Amino acid sequence: MLIVKPQNFQLPAPLPLDCGRELRQVNIRFETVGTLSPSRNNAILITHALSGDAHVCGKYTETDRKPGWWDEMVGPGKAIDTDKYFVVCSNVLGSCAGSTGPRSFNPETGNPYNLDFPVITIRDMVRAQKHLMNHLGIRRWLTVIGGSMGGMQALEWAINYPDDLASFVPIATTSQLSPQSIAFDWVGREAIKYDPNWQNGNYSADRVPDRGLAAARMLAHITYLSDESMSRKFGRELQDSASYSFDFSRDFAVESYLEHQGRRFVERFDANSYFYITRAMDYFDIAARTGGDLAKAFAPVKAPALVISFSSDWLFPTSESRKIVNALLKNRCHVSFCEIQSGYGHDAFLLEVDALGGMVRDFLHNRWKELEQNG
Amino acid sequence: MLIVKPQNFQLPAPLPLDCGRELRQVNIRFETVGTLSPSRNNAILITHALSGDAHVCGKYTETDRKPGWWDEMVGPGKAIDTDKYFVVCSNVLGSCAGSTGPRSFNPETGNPYNLDFPVITIRDMVRAQKHLMNHLGIRRWLTVIGGSMGGMQALEWAINYPDDLASFVPIATTSQLSPQSIAFDWVGREAIKYDPNWQNGNYSADRVPDRGLAAARMLAHITYLSDESMSRKFGRELQDSASYSFDFSRDFAVESYLEHQGRRFVERFDANSYFYITRAMDYFDIAARTGGDLAKAFAPVKAPALVISFSSDWLFPTSESRKIVNALLKNRCHVSFCEIQSGYGHDAFLLEVDALGGMVRDFLHNRWKELEQNG
Repeated sequence: MLIVKPQNFQLPAPLPLDCGRELRQVNIRFETVGTLSPSRNNAILITHALSGDAHVCGKYTETDRKPGWWDEMVGPGKAIDTDKYFVVCSNVLGSCAGSTGPRSFNPETGNPYNLDFPVITIRDMVRAQKHLMNHLGIRRWLTVIGGSMGGMQALEWAINYPDDLASFVPIATTSQLSPQSIAFDWVGREAIKYDPNWQNGNYSADRVPDRGLAAARMLAHITYLSDESMSRKFGRELQDSASYSFDFSRDFAVESYLEHQGRRFVERFDANSYFYITRAMDYFDIAARTGGDLAKAFAPVKAPALVISFSSDWLFPTSESRKIVNALLKNRCHVSFCEIQSGYGHDAFLLEVDALGGMVRDFLHNRWKELEQNG
Repeated sequence: MLIVKPQNFQLPAPLPLDCGRELRQVNIRFETVGTLSPSRNNAILITHALSGDAHVCGKYTETDRKPGWWDEMVGPGKAIDTDKYFVVCSNVLGSCAGSTGPRSFNPETGNPYNLDFPVITIRDMVRAQKHLMNHLGIRRWLTVIGGSMGGMQALEWAINYPDDLASFVPIATTSQLSPQSIAFDWVGREAIKYDPNWQNGNYSADRVPDRGLAAARMLAHITYLSDESMSRKFGRELQDSASYSFDFSRDFAVESYLEHQGRRFVERFDANSYFYITRAMDYFDIAARTGGDLAKAFAPVKAPALVISFSSDWLFPTSESRKIVNALLKNRCHVSFCEIQSGYGHDAFLLEVDALGGMVRDFLHNRWKELEQNG
C-alpha cells in the first residue's frame, strides 16, 4: 500500500493575477510520490480537473476507503511509475482542498474572502505551480500531464514556461471553452445562486448552498458521460419497482445515480470554489491572446506533446484536440496524437486506464531516455 | 393577415388515464384554420412540443406582435396550406395554455390540482385529442404532424388509432426518451424544486417559482441548440465590453441570451405544467409495451409515414428516427425518411422551414390526391 501525505507550501511573495489584483499569503497544498533523481530529470507534474485535488494516488492511512483520484494510473509500477519518477500534484488555486481559495481567510480582513476573492484564470493556477516547482528545486518537468482542466494547465505550462518542461500531455481538453460549455457553467452557477443558503457567497459553514451545488454537479455530470455510456449503464431501467410510480419521485436508475452524485459532491466540494473554477474555465481561451490565431499563441512552445482525446467525449471533443495538434504542428513542434475509442464520454480520461496508460508509459519512458542521453 | 380565434371543447365524459385515474371536466383549448371539405378528407392535426400551444399560426388581432409558433409553416399558401386544408391544433392535456392542467381547478375540491393532478402520458394527451376529433366531426385525419413531443403524439396516433389517420409525420422525435434526456429533465425539475417559491407545487399566482423554472428552461434550451449553432450565433463573444469583467455577471453573449430565454419562458409557462409534461416525456417508451420490441409495438400501424430528422439534433438524433423507420419497415409500412442537413440542432424543426416545408407540402399533396381518388 502506497502511503502519501499532504504537504503545504506558502508562497514567499504575493501572487500577481491576470485580473490585475494580487493574492497575499497563498498556500498551495501538494503531494509528492517517488524520489527526485540526482540529475533532477524525473519530475512529473500532474494537473487536476475541476473537482480534483492534490491527492492523486495512494492513501493517507492503511484504512482509507478510497485511494487518490488517478490511483489506477499513478503508483509503483503503474503507467506513471512512482518507482521511476518523482510525481508532484498540487491543488489548484481557487479550490477548496487545501490551496488558497474563496473560503480561505483574507489576511486583510480576517474573514473568508467569499466573492471578494479575485477571479482567477488557468494561467494564475499555473503561475502558483511555478512557485511550487522552484520551491521543490525542480529545474525542468519531465512532463506536465492532465485531463480536462488539467490539460488546460498543461497547455499554459508549455506556452508560458517553455524552458521548464521537457514534454506535455494535454488529455481530453480544449484550447478554449465552447459557448455550449460556458452555457452549462452559467446554468450551474445560476442553480447555486437560486439556493436560499447561497447568500451571495457569504454562507456559513453549517448552512451551505448544498441543493444548488448538487444541481450544478448533476448537470455537469451529464456532460461528463455520453449518451452511449448512459444507455449502457442505465438505459431506461427503473430503480426500485417494476412499473412507473406516476409521480415525481425517483423512478429511473439514472435519476438515482445523478442524485447520488450530487449528494456525494456537496460532501467534498465548496460552492464558491465551484464559482471560481468554472469561471476560470469560461475565461480559458488561448487564441484570444493572439487575435484568435491559435498557432501564433503556441509559438513559444518548445516541448514535444502527446495529445489525447476520446471518441465519445462531447464536452471536449476530438475536434478540439485536433485544433491543438494542428496549431502545434504549424509551429513545427513534435506532436503525437491519439483519439482513443471509448464510449465513456469525457470521463474516459479517468476510466480508460489501459489504453491511456500504455501510451503515457511509453511516451514518458522515451522522453526520460532522451533526457538521460542528452541532458 | 390571418386572424384566428381560440376555442374550447369540454370533454363529454371523464377521461381515463394510463395511470389508472380519470380526469373530470376536461377542457381542451384548440384552434382551427381553413375549411373542412364536404368529403372531410382535408383535416390535419398539428401536435405541439413541450412549450407549445394551440396557437399554431396567424394572429388573434391585427396588432398582435407575434404570430403562432409555426406560422412560417402553416397558413394560406404555405407548406401546410390553410387554403386547401382544415388545420386543427390543440393544447395538450397537462399544459398551461388553455387545456386542463395542474393549475386548473379540481372540480372535487374547488382548488387548483397542483401536484394532485394525475401524472399523464403522451398517450393520454392523444386520447383527449381523439375526443376533439369526434367533436369536430372528423372521421380521418389527412395527417397528424408534429415535431419533438409533437412527433411522439403522431406516433401514438398511428399506433392507437390506426384507422383514424391517412398518414403521419413525426419530426425530430424518438420512440423512447433516452437516459440522457431523462437526466436533463430530472435536473430541470430539481432546479424548480429548489426554488423557495415552489412550495411543493402549491405556489400562489403572485409568488411563482420563476427562478427555478428559468434555470430549468435555460438548461433545456442548451439541448435544443447545437454546439455548432451556438458557436456560429455567439461564439465566445462578450456581451457589453471588450474584456472580461473578472466577476460573475454576464460576460458572454451566450449567457445573456440564455438569461433572456429563461426570463421570457417564465412569463408564459407554468412550473407545474413543466413538471407534468417533462414527466410524460420521461415515461414515453413505445417499445416497452411490447417487451422492448419496437417493430411489434408498431404492428397496428396502417398509415404511411414521413419521418424527418435533423443532422445536428443531439437531443433526438437521426439514429432515433432510423429506429422508427426500421421498425415501421419491418411492418411493411410505407415510410419516407429524410435527414435534413442543418446546424440548428433540435430547434431546426422550427427553423428549417424551406427544406422541411417543401417536403411536407409534397407529402401532404400526394396523400390528399390519393384520398381524393380512392376515398
